[in-house]
Amino acid sequence: MAYFPDVEKVTYEGRQSRNPLAFKYYNPTEIVAGKTMAEHLRFAVSYWHTFTLTGTDPFGQPTMVRPWDGFSGLDLAKKRVEAAFEFFDKLGVAYFCFHDRDIAPEGDTLRETNRNLDIIVSMIKDYMTTSAKKLLWNTQNMFSHPRFVHGAATSPNADVFAYSAAQVKKGLEVALELEAENYVFWGGREGYETLLNTNLQLELDNLARLLKMACDYADEIGFKGQLLVEPKPKEPTKHQYDFDAATTIAFLQRYGLSDRFKLNVEANHASLAGHTFDHELAVSRVNGMLGSVDANQGDALLGWDTDEFPTDLYSTTLAMVQILKNGGLHSGGLNFDAKVRRGSMTPLDLFYGHIVGMDSFARGLKVAARLIEDAVFDDVITERYASYQRGIGADIVSGKSTLKSLEEYILDKQVTVQESGRQEFLLAKLNQYLLEVE
Amino acid sequence: MAYFPDVEKVTYEGRQSRNPLAFKYYNPTEIVAGKTMAEHLRFAVSYWHTFTLTGTDPFGQPTMVRPWDGFSGLDLAKKRVEAAFEFFDKLGVAYFCFHDRDIAPEGDTLRETNRNLDIIVSMIKDYMTTSAKKLLWNTQNMFSHPRFVHGAATSPNADVFAYSAAQVKKGLEVALELEAENYVFWGGREGYETLLNTNLQLELDNLARLLKMACDYADEIGFKGQLLVEPKPKEPTKHQYDFDAATTIAFLQRYGLSDRFKLNVEANHASLAGHTFDHELAVSRVNGMLGSVDANQGDALLGWDTDEFPTDLYSTTLAMVQILKNGGLHSGGLNFDAKVRRGSMTPLDLFYGHIVGMDSFARGLKVAARLIEDAVFDDVITERYASYQRGIGADIVSGKSTLKSLEEYILDKQVTVQESGRQEFLLAKLNQYLLEVE
Amino acid sequence: MAYFPDVEKVTYEGRQSRNPLAFKYYNPTEIVAGKTMAEHLRFAVSYWHTFTLTGTDPFGQPTMVRPWDGFSGLDLAKKRVEAAFEFFDKLGVAYFCFHDRDIAPEGDTLRETNRNLDIIVSMIKDYMTTSAKKLLWNTQNMFSHPRFVHGAATSPNADVFAYSAAQVKKGLEVALELEAENYVFWGGREGYETLLNTNLQLELDNLARLLKMACDYADEIGFKGQLLVEPKPKEPTKHQYDFDAATTIAFLQRYGLSDRFKLNVEANHASLAGHTFDHELAVSRVNGMLGSVDANQGDALLGWDTDEFPTDLYSTTLAMVQILKNGGLHSGGLNFDAKVRRGSMTPLDLFYGHIVGMDSFARGLKVAARLIEDAVFDDVITERYASYQRGIGADIVSGKSTLKSLEEYILDKQVTVQESGRQEFLLAKLNQYLLEVE
Amino acid sequence: MAYFPDVEKVTYEGRQSRNPLAFKYYNPTEIVAGKTMAEHLRFAVSYWHTFTLTGTDPFGQPTMVRPWDGFSGLDLAKKRVEAAFEFFDKLGVAYFCFHDRDIAPEGDTLRETNRNLDIIVSMIKDYMTTSAKKLLWNTQNMFSHPRFVHGAATSPNADVFAYSAAQVKKGLEVALELEAENYVFWGGREGYETLLNTNLQLELDNLARLLKMACDYADEIGFKGQLLVEPKPKEPTKHQYDFDAATTIAFLQRYGLSDRFKLNVEANHASLAGHTFDHELAVSRVNGMLGSVDANQGDALLGWDTDEFPTDLYSTTLAMVQILKNGGLHSGGLNFDAKVRRGSMTPLDLFYGHIVGMDSFARGLKVAARLIEDAVFDDVITERYASYQRGIGADIVSGKSTLKSLEEYILDKQVTVQESGRQEFLLAKLNQYLLEVE
Repeated sequence: MAYFPDVEKVTYEGRQSRNPLAFKYYNPTEIVAGKTMAEHLRFAVSYWHTFTLTGTDPFGQPTMVRPWDGFSGLDLAKKRVEAAFEFFDKLGVAYFCFHDRDIAPEGDTLRETNRNLDIIVSMIKDYMTTSAKKLLWNTQNMFSHPRFVHGAATSPNADVFAYSAAQVKKGLEVALELEAENYVFWGGREGYETLLNTNLQLELDNLARLLKMACDYADEIGFKGQLLVEPKPKEPTKHQYDFDAATTIAFLQRYGLSDRFKLNVEANHASLAGHTFDHELAVSRVNGMLGSVDANQGDALLGWDTDEFPTDLYSTTLAMVQILKNGGLHSGGLNFDAKVRRGSMTPLDLFYGHIVGMDSFARGLKVAARLIEDAVFDDVITERYASYQRGIGADIVSGKSTLKSLEEYILDKQVTVQESGRQEFLLAKLNQYLLEVE
Repeated sequence: MAYFPDVEKVTYEGRQSRNPLAFKYYNPTEIVAGKTMAEHLRFAVSYWHTFTLTGTDPFGQPTMVRPWDGFSGLDLAKKRVEAAFEFFDKLGVAYFCFHDRDIAPEGDTLRETNRNLDIIVSMIKDYMTTSAKKLLWNTQNMFSHPRFVHGAATSPNADVFAYSAAQVKKGLEVALELEAENYVFWGGREGYETLLNTNLQLELDNLARLLKMACDYADEIGFKGQLLVEPKPKEPTKHQYDFDAATTIAFLQRYGLSDRFKLNVEANHASLAGHTFDHELAVSRVNGMLGSVDANQGDALLGWDTDEFPTDLYSTTLAMVQILKNGGLHSGGLNFDAKVRRGSMTPLDLFYGHIVGMDSFARGLKVAARLIEDAVFDDVITERYASYQRGIGADIVSGKSTLKSLEEYILDKQVTVQESGRQEFLLAKLNQYLLEVE
Repeated sequence: MAYFPDVEKVTYEGRQSRNPLAFKYYNPTEIVAGKTMAEHLRFAVSYWHTFTLTGTDPFGQPTMVRPWDGFSGLDLAKKRVEAAFEFFDKLGVAYFCFHDRDIAPEGDTLRETNRNLDIIVSMIKDYMTTSAKKLLWNTQNMFSHPRFVHGAATSPNADVFAYSAAQVKKGLEVALELEAENYVFWGGREGYETLLNTNLQLELDNLARLLKMACDYADEIGFKGQLLVEPKPKEPTKHQYDFDAATTIAFLQRYGLSDRFKLNVEANHASLAGHTFDHELAVSRVNGMLGSVDANQGDALLGWDTDEFPTDLYSTTLAMVQILKNGGLHSGGLNFDAKVRRGSMTPLDLFYGHIVGMDSFARGLKVAARLIEDAVFDDVITERYASYQRGIGADIVSGKSTLKSLEEYILDKQVTVQESGRQEFLLAKLNQYLLEVE
Repeated sequence: MAYFPDVEKVTYEGRQSRNPLAFKYYNPTEIVAGKTMAEHLRFAVSYWHTFTLTGTDPFGQPTMVRPWDGFSGLDLAKKRVEAAFEFFDKLGVAYFCFHDRDIAPEGDTLRETNRNLDIIVSMIKDYMTTSAKKLLWNTQNMFSHPRFVHGAATSPNADVFAYSAAQVKKGLEVALELEAENYVFWGGREGYETLLNTNLQLELDNLARLLKMACDYADEIGFKGQLLVEPKPKEPTKHQYDFDAATTIAFLQRYGLSDRFKLNVEANHASLAGHTFDHELAVSRVNGMLGSVDANQGDALLGWDTDEFPTDLYSTTLAMVQILKNGGLHSGGLNFDAKVRRGSMTPLDLFYGHIVGMDSFARGLKVAARLIEDAVFDDVITERYASYQRGIGADIVSGKSTLKSLEEYILDKQVTVQESGRQEFLLAKLNQYLLEVE
């Protein structure tokens, strides 16, 4: 095929040709902490950002130059599938992810839409068989069509709920058919624009109802993949119910769904919610809810989801620390929910975006593995909390203490804290490891 | 007494004397929605902002001019009690709130500190008896002293945990002694500065352990008041564990504490967490967790807790809508966790701050009551969600539907949503009610 | 005509029919502070938000239901003109504003595009003659087409600069033809995505070059309208050069353009830049640069330009204070750069949006006029700064003082400041005027 | 002396002793781009953060453990001088910076305060002579004392203006005496809390008046150092007049002060203003106004000035790119306006903070020098803007073009932009250089 340039040879023109396209840090067969890089870093290409995106923004028209320009309908959908699998191959990535509407066009009714979907799913299945590429997860787009203007599961219109339910049903069937390792729920319109017109209680109940039905149906058809909810605080809605990891965990707990679901944590969604990426990963991890990751980055000075390719090595390193401490992502992976900038409109930029993302996580993995192996942070943590290993601290942790027993212990004691938290030291260590790990 | 000016007669000098100090909207005996304003609006004065605050900020020294200037130690503490009860009287407010360290100075040991506390508590009890003022809630200050530099219940130092436990024990005893209607936990240092040196799991467990011990001890001594946790996302810590209402509810659920605790929701903490005030109230309400309110406001353009007196009538009105829908705050109230600006250093400003706050909530109450009575928003909401009252919608809500049944229903149906959410209309109505309610 | 409903009679269905569509505060012939409301409040309808907007957002397809749905090309353009003038009439607004590409479609070349434009401009001119509607300002859209992906005047491609120049030339000719009272420059793509690929100096110089050419050409053809630059900090670019009022004034000063240009200040752009609306108006005013206003509001918790209809009476009141202190907006006006929410998709919502906006500014005008007439703030200000009217203060202001003379004056003097800034008092007054002005 | 530990030998206890305290990247005598590191990186220690800071925050008491604990008044001031020069020596830093009130206590009158100041200045002068340490800049603290509650030069009280003027006079005399290479103005209280009580025009005029008097007096006494204004957008004031680089440049231009002043750009102040650090440096540079740098970093998720030691290598590298392109900082330097965290209370942390800061800038310098030497970004920039070197582009830049000539050129031409901005590629290069530069 020839959808994309022969990337090893082609590069930007001019003096930059001194800088050909290549991985510098990612080596799929290299062993790190007992596994290959490819096993640690189950990278996935996002179908929407890479094959469907046109480069529009709220103030601008499409800019992207793509090999499938000029096609439409099912023809366009098929060209994209062909191009996608060529891209996966040339990039050397094993996984991909999609929304139902990324891969096939809508028809006049859901029946017709599903028919279109079946055609493309069948084609994808063939490609998967011959290429050994795997579906990390699929999901349903219940936010683009105007029927979802006021929500999907949380729409005030019961027909929209029904439509959403049917769409999820089909999505789970596709997941089963393509052996998806996970199935994702991101509720872009599941929230409110203004409380003035909103029945908050009913909307939350209905959101839970749909998730419950999805569990039941997954069990019914024998879909064993992990179900995931993806938190995001806002955009396109003013307030999205799955605001952040803690909020989503609360919701799943409240409605008895926390056994069947985990979280798909996205870096840019973390920053929109006022958190660091590793905070969201850590909160998910200690709650046993870290399922998969949308690997991207935002711009700390912009208030919308910029979905940039991850290049910040601090972010990738600290994320990998959490992921390694989680024993890996298990059925999850690192999906590049990331798009080239609107001004990076050539196919070559698609490669550069993914390569810098993969390299950044590869470097992050190696640094994180060494930080853990050398117990750089863990030693400090162990020392800091040592008082809970013995005496009064052990009593507290074991549940023996009461307010009374603790008062008795402390009433005449001087308590002074002069142990440093060593933050500057730890940040110096982080820099040293970042730069010096081989 | 003569701690404060005779406020009815005194005002700012100059031409502004045309504007004497007076309530314009708050009338304690006026009936609104079946209760007096005083019953609806259980206002409390915050001891710390009104009697302890000196006007320092991170760049500046004290500015406040106070009648107790020049005193220190227990003498200062006693002067403040006298002044406080005079202030409550002159202002006509029935409730107050304090941290243990607001009212009495620390000694060298906790035993000595408690002795100081007992002296002042006894004095306050006498004043309460003669003045009919009541304690809305008390709480413990476990954030100012350097021993809490790395946390209180979440300190890496077990002695600090013990100290905190003992302090909570005493706090509950004071609550019992003074018949506090609630007891509050705000964990200003219960969070982390950097994940690099933090055992997140142990810290969260320990935070829950302290709350559990507090429940047990409250039961043991027969304290019947409502226990409250106050969410805040950050400041002074980089990340505070009780980030917002949803996060705090998740935490309480996870540790089996949600039956015994409710939330104390603060307006400025909501905005720091990226939420509106009424959002946090609504989330608490629909989860059955709305306990009490810290009535203040922040500055949307500043990233720290400005704790301004509430003057924004939109905020007070929409807050009162949630509170009325909650059937009121029950044992809770509206505590002015608000301070006069550093440049408002005269005692007169203390009155103006409280008066504008009380007037703003009084106006908000009246507007909210009429909005509810006239069903201005509720009519729109009822219409919007009507499809869940019948047919497929009723099936969904009743639990009869499955993904399959819903697919069958919708597969060949056109679903178009052209019903307006009417946001502009509702905002126009809100303005009209705000301006025109009698 | 029958493009829009007969708004006096139609309203939302259901119980809300008790609330028909009507102005509550705006009365064009009412006299306020010596002029009619219509003279004070030169409201303009934005062509783009009202007649071109489809309801797309970064995650969603069009939702709007419009009488011109189904038309395309020049036919669509003509239908919109007819509808627009009917809308202006039914709403009772005298002014409108447009970008060149709002009113007519692009052709294959600029020559062809200009031909399309001429057809519609001619049609608009006829309508203006018969309807007495006026053009507050027009402007050029140099941000939507992909040729502007890297900027217009600041594009790295000189052909794009040339294209932009030609587009501005035509824009000024249209302004002359339609007797526009102002001409606006908003540089949505005049900024950078990353400094790594940006020649900052050349881009700023080129931006100034285009503005200079525009001045020269305006003079050449005898266009007497006010030239305006509209600040915005970001979106769609990461950084826009005209960040805020102060930055734009600095730029205009540096390049010798400050005599010919003033600013078009937008409320939502102020908040994106970290300022209040009245701050930006005040900064423009004291620099003699306040030209016109884009009347809308943002959402303090969202990081993008939400362009909501102005409903916040604090914002409209404090804006009108600045505008009245400026002696009005002169050739400028209040353009509703505001769009109905994506979920407010009916034509009726267009009326509600504009009506609440007009009412909010009408109320703001009346309150502001009374605040100024009663010198509510001005009295406090006069008193506060009185020390500059006499003695050492007068010497300072008159330029007589030096560091030496001031040292001599103060060296042995106690300087204590205990005068309150009275912020709580002033906010109480603001609320009282807001609610009680007749 | 023995104020500080013998840092080469001491380290944190425990297993971390494997990580002794040491510079990894900073080598003062190493040559980079033709100069020694020490010449490029004129590091300065901030007196206030290192010798005056106690560890208070808005919610907490002092935590710092310092060798001068227990002293007060002039004795304390003297101990700090001794300790400071020992610290400079042990750290190997050549410069320092201070506010007048950092180094000596206030007396009852300015005369007495100046007398205290003279004692310490004389002592510092002696130490400077024997140690070859130099004063990068000094400044006046006109924000901590309550007299500055409403501003200094912008106070509504003329006596406060006079006091400020006298304080600046003394500051310039100290600068002359100690041969400061610069003199800084940071106006922490020069702004407003609310526009309602503010005479914006008078305040801006007065701010300019004080700066003009300072220029005159500097000339009079023959102080040749660079005068600097330091922008900050807010905190402690709600709005500070010197909001950011562009705003400050506008102000200096408007009042005819831009020849005598340059800017002192701080990283954390940039982020509070919504800018990146290198943006503020670039804006200052292209305006010829880059004077000196306050080297620190903020927390992108916190809304206040955290003044952390700079550890982010992206920030230090991109800052050094701007500084190298500026031909260095000339009389300016890199002042660590940075404080150890409140929980880093040991003297050892002071060393770690400075070492990680110095190492981070040293690494940034080397990477920046190589990026410039290899023209990694400059090549892309040269290519991108090449069209301005010839033909129509050259005409535009040379001033030959008009709107007419450009229209003629472009009217029938297709303008398509498909050149990538290469952002992903450039970020990949940045990472490679960051990790691989020797």
